[in-house]
Amino acid sequence: MRSISKIVVGVVLVVMVAGVAVAQFAKPEDAIQYRKAVMFLIAHHFKNMAAVMQGKADFDRTIFAKDADVVKMLATLPWGAFQEPGTDEGDTTMSSAAFKKKEDFLSLSETFQNDTALLAEAAQGADLDGLKAPFNAVAKDCKACHSTFRK
Amino acid sequence: MRSISKIVVGVVLVVMVAGVAVAQFAKPEDAIQYRKAVMFLIAHHFKNMAAVMQGKADFDRTIFAKDADVVKMLATLPWGAFQEPGTDEGDTTMSSAAFKKKEDFLSLSETFQNDTALLAEAAQGADLDGLKAPFNAVAKDCKACHSTFRK
Repeated sequence: MRSISKIVVGVVLVVMVAGVAVAQFAKPEDAIQYRKAVMFLIAHHFKNMAAVMQGKADFDRTIFAKDADVVKMLATLPWGAFQEPGTDEGDTTMSSAAFKKKEDFLSLSETFQNDTALLAEAAQGADLDGLKAPFNAVAKDCKACHSTFRK
Repeated sequence: MRSISKIVVGVVLVVMVAGVAVAQFAKPEDAIQYRKAVMFLIAHHFKNMAAVMQGKADFDRTIFAKDADVVKMLATLPWGAFQEPGTDEGDTTMSSAAFKKKEDFLSLSETFQNDTALLAEAAQGADLDGLKAPFNAVAKDCKACHSTFRK
């Protein structure tokens, strides 16, 4: 178990380093604009799935799986931008708690990445009942992070 | 050859239908905001790769391949939003030519999707020299579409 844990930690670190490295910004405003774009698109595609889960839209596997894939990919992107110095001020709803409780913030971001990946995987084969748990896990992650780290 | 062409046409149609179907909007402004977010992120990650190709940033395969993957995914998203009625007015740089020459516009969007997929594939193994041609193809696609369909 210990060696598996080490592998998992290693993979997470590589992902985080890559995530931070692809998100470099000349100005704080650029980082804010970047993460806003990512969050806007996550919200759009998550709402598509929410409409299906709530019975407001038909379940089409191709479309649902595409939404889940898009959210999975987008979920890997914005965390470096959220950690850019000076980006808790200006045109943003991010609380400075994201800096003060950096470990908690990044831990929640990892949970979100894991859960969006699980939802995308489930969307390949599960029926609507089977999608409930992985979908609700992602919804819970959204709320957990926003309640602490959004103004 | 004819049957292969039919398969290709079939795949393209499925992709287009899926692409259009995941992009539904209550208001023209929502579609404009959606495609702007996608284009902003494509530009960000494309510029990361451009800096490498121009020798202004080091070549790190993990980072380059991630940028290429992100662009490949994003390239599938915004075309339905560009075809939403009324979105050639307001806070947009899209020309109404995107409606008037819809077939040309969608044809360029397909070329872009194909070329970004080829770049993402090349980024898995090619060296910098081998990345030049697929990168330049994507750059050319950007210019071709913007020169005709951007105000």
